[in-house]
Amino acid sequence: MMEFKDFEEKTLSRKELFKGNIIEVVLDEVQLPDGSVGQRELVFHPGAVAVIPITNDNKMIMVKQFRKPMEKVILEIPAGKIDPGEQDNPRATAKRELEEEAGYKANKLIHVHSMYLSPGFANEIVHLYYAENLEKIDNPLPQDEDEVLELYTLTLEEAKQEIANGLICDAKTIFAIQYWELKQLKEK
Amino acid sequence: MMEFKDFEEKTLSRKELFKGNIIEVVLDEVQLPDGSVGQRELVFHPGAVAVIPITNDNKMIMVKQFRKPMEKVILEIPAGKIDPGEQDNPRATAKRELEEEAGYKANKLIHVHSMYLSPGFANEIVHLYYAENLEKIDNPLPQDEDEVLELYTLTLEEAKQEIANGLICDAKTIFAIQYWELKQLKEK
Repeated sequence: MMEFKDFEEKTLSRKELFKGNIIEVVLDEVQLPDGSVGQRELVFHPGAVAVIPITNDNKMIMVKQFRKPMEKVILEIPAGKIDPGEQDNPRATAKRELEEEAGYKANKLIHVHSMYLSPGFANEIVHLYYAENLEKIDNPLPQDEDEVLELYTLTLEEAKQEIANGLICDAKTIFAIQYWELKQLKEK
Repeated sequence: MMEFKDFEEKTLSRKELFKGNIIEVVLDEVQLPDGSVGQRELVFHPGAVAVIPITNDNKMIMVKQFRKPMEKVILEIPAGKIDPGEQDNPRATAKRELEEEAGYKANKLIHVHSMYLSPGFANEIVHLYYAENLEKIDNPLPQDEDEVLELYTLTLEEAKQEIANGLICDAKTIFAIQYWELKQLKEK
């Protein structure tokens, strides 16, 4: 269906603004298809993984944590950024995060989607996995040093209630809950 | 259900790194609940709106555009950032973007969710609306000067096919398609 017209924005110059441990920020001067010149503020990110972990009694495992950008404690599915060395294997990151954050290993781990979160200014991609047939790990990997997490398990109704309450308020987690609801409806 | 432990990360100092037209980037030194000190790379964003526009013959309207962070042409639902003056009224932004990007006005516009996209480093929120009873506008608002857009309308099956093809690859759009599918299943 998709015939192309000229969309490309050519980079005329790039200014490096910040290179941190997680993000890199640059300012591009670009030439638009009509010849005019514009600016693009860009954030580069190594990518992330998120897991929808469903327990054997049909509850979703979530972690509560403080999120500095919003100065808020929120409830999310386990997630984390891809470490160097995991770039070609987000499934390994998914397994690691599920173990580190929740203390579980999944005997079934299905890739759901890989999605860009903020395509207007950031290249961050999240690889989302659905995990079931979970098994508690006796001596799980330790959590990241700079993370304080608390674990919860919620039924579908409880999860929807926490969306209404505002404690669940991030896209990947609301997506996960919608995915879970749709999956259950389809399997009926 | 949610008793609290101490999660807060206190800001010890903040370094302003960049203030652009869209994003602002800062580096915070924070004190974690255990007393240790960490760094947080933060991106502040004015927030955005996205619309799930469904035509009277049950197709979803999408826009094709070049996205510089990924150097790719992708297909998304209409969306845009909240302008100054619209901060308390994202519904106005939704109406404006639907008119500017797609040339439609919605006689029914329902708030679906307001969601943080990348809570680990960015405070960007997207307010998502579902639009139906659409009406073509004869003389719509002009598109943004620095945007090149092409309109498409897709059935649910076509939309799912474009996810598989990779042309639809951003979270809000895949979310929108899942929402639409769930809505149809529930109404059956």
